[in-house]
Amino acid sequence: MKLGGLERRTIQATADGAVEIIDQTALPGRLALRRLATLADGVEAIRAMRVRGAPLIGVTAAYALAFALREDGSDAVVARARAALLAARPTAVNLAWALEEIAREVAPLAPARRAQAAWAAAGRLAEADVAACRAIAGHGAALLGSLVAARPGQPLNVMTHCNAGWLATVDWGTALAPVYLLHQQGVRLHVWVSETRPRNQGLLTAWELAQQGVPHSLHVDSAAGHLLQRGAVDVVVVGTDRITRGGDVTNKIGTYLKALAAREAGVPFYAAAPSSSIDWSLADAREVPIEDRGRGEVTTDPDVPVVNPGFDVTPASLVAGLITERGTCAASAAGLAALFPERAA
Amino acid sequence: MKLGGLERRTIQATADGAVEIIDQTALPGRLALRRLATLADGVEAIRAMRVRGAPLIGVTAAYALAFALREDGSDAVVARARAALLAARPTAVNLAWALEEIAREVAPLAPARRAQAAWAAAGRLAEADVAACRAIAGHGAALLGSLVAARPGQPLNVMTHCNAGWLATVDWGTALAPVYLLHQQGVRLHVWVSETRPRNQGLLTAWELAQQGVPHSLHVDSAAGHLLQRGAVDVVVVGTDRITRGGDVTNKIGTYLKALAAREAGVPFYAAAPSSSIDWSLADAREVPIEDRGRGEVTTDPDVPVVNPGFDVTPASLVAGLITERGTCAASAAGLAALFPERAA
Repeated sequence: MKLGGLERRTIQATADGAVEIIDQTALPGRLALRRLATLADGVEAIRAMRVRGAPLIGVTAAYALAFALREDGSDAVVARARAALLAARPTAVNLAWALEEIAREVAPLAPARRAQAAWAAAGRLAEADVAACRAIAGHGAALLGSLVAARPGQPLNVMTHCNAGWLATVDWGTALAPVYLLHQQGVRLHVWVSETRPRNQGLLTAWELAQQGVPHSLHVDSAAGHLLQRGAVDVVVVGTDRITRGGDVTNKIGTYLKALAAREAGVPFYAAAPSSSIDWSLADAREVPIEDRGRGEVTTDPDVPVVNPGFDVTPASLVAGLITERGTCAASAAGLAALFPERAA
Repeated sequence: MKLGGLERRTIQATADGAVEIIDQTALPGRLALRRLATLADGVEAIRAMRVRGAPLIGVTAAYALAFALREDGSDAVVARARAALLAARPTAVNLAWALEEIAREVAPLAPARRAQAAWAAAGRLAEADVAACRAIAGHGAALLGSLVAARPGQPLNVMTHCNAGWLATVDWGTALAPVYLLHQQGVRLHVWVSETRPRNQGLLTAWELAQQGVPHSLHVDSAAGHLLQRGAVDVVVVGTDRITRGGDVTNKIGTYLKALAAREAGVPFYAAAPSSSIDWSLADAREVPIEDRGRGEVTTDPDVPVVNPGFDVTPASLVAGLITERGTCAASAAGLAALFPERAA
């Protein structure tokens, strides 16, 4: 995406073998770049949510694993680095998937050659993420285009949740990728942006939509039901941190409430994600670990008891479809198997 | 309710003819009392939400009208004061109802006698509110008691929204009144407290529950669906700013999402309110004015477009029952008519 007139990715390799990220904890107030060059840098950036969004976390973790191997390419270091990175954010499956990809790539190599191979593989993962998100943009735009055609002369009102845009991936985004593509094609859109307490990632969504000139409105999370009930929303599109093989969608806390209200309003609810977000091993979404992110995000008052689940599960029955890099499918085992026969077997 | 060991109401008449309120904008950080002695004091306190909660707003408005009549008891002053108070918060029907009660009381009197009559009438409204809330406590406790009996040995998990407790009324509260009564009777309870963005009235609920020693947990509004889905909630009880004669419930933004998630989880959803919250003139909840409370509550960033509806409507079909001072009834025209035959006719 363009940023200040220049093409920019959320994570970019530097000439001297580090990576430069946009520190998302400084947004929307300030655009701050941050250099990551060690495993510890990567773990900290993921845990502190300087990078966030399942796809971007995966790519960042891949680079961090490559950094770890520069000191020592042994199996023990691979194992230790993977454990440290996995523990930084337990819910997103892309993180585990990216680490698995890198580990498989370097396993047959001599320890001394692993760091360079991991670095190259991390770069390929980043490129693959861009390609997947661009493909999601195309498939999603086709889907949303049919809704646009049904209401000529009116902007398409898209509701999303959290940030599943450019900032959540290397480029383009997932849920917002179709929005950006349609906007580039001159289609009139308006995006409903949920604040997304407790960390207010909606402000990131508002910021990146503003950068690209896409009309939008911010609202508190609680307003989603009212907006859907009053007919202000044509379609809901969210990202996801993990899709079960049956099509259940784990995403930022609050997603499930939007899905319920969308069904009640007769508004289609889609989840957009690269296939790296599909957990083929998981049949029952109740087994997805839901991280409790602790009291500090909710209140500074030490006397108030707090629970702070970071994610919730939207059952497949509430999901009109899954938008992936291979196309859109039903949120079901059969739908996913038809798109990804080699994985579902 | 007890506060620091002393019985205290949220609004108390002083010996010199003013009233003393708890300034709720200072809570939960600080307990600040504030004296109101003029119409302007009352309008400001309602508009700035120093007092909030439909029943308490009504009583405060009644006192403020009495203050206005001290200067001049003319019909013109009555009309001007009513208009100023009505404009301070448009959604809650109790405000309009309380002003109507006072105006009817003073209408037949000579202007010079109106101020004193209005003051006395405001005091009676305050007493009536306490009596109504105490009756709601009894009826609600009977209802919740049957849920307690069904799960021996386990605390009853009650979810609420916003603040519909002691602080929202003169004493006892509406949604929380049954909770306090059961707690006094030694029944084990735990209350799920929604943050209630954008104004965080959930912190008021957490504060007043803590004052009375009732176990509770604070969570972001978006977590309500997850908690209901995972079986952590036995019953949802909310207050309401306006009930249509068909049983639709207008309440703080986000209530509707909780009702949808409660239905999905098979958990009963109740609204508790004195009958002054019933708008007998209104058949269609879509006609309830939903105040947009402006951008400042949501973000300080002047560049982000904002919508900020303060309330939403929960259709009667999602409401298991209405808890009033006369008992619990179905959320329907027939249910309300059976409890209040003299109004429904």
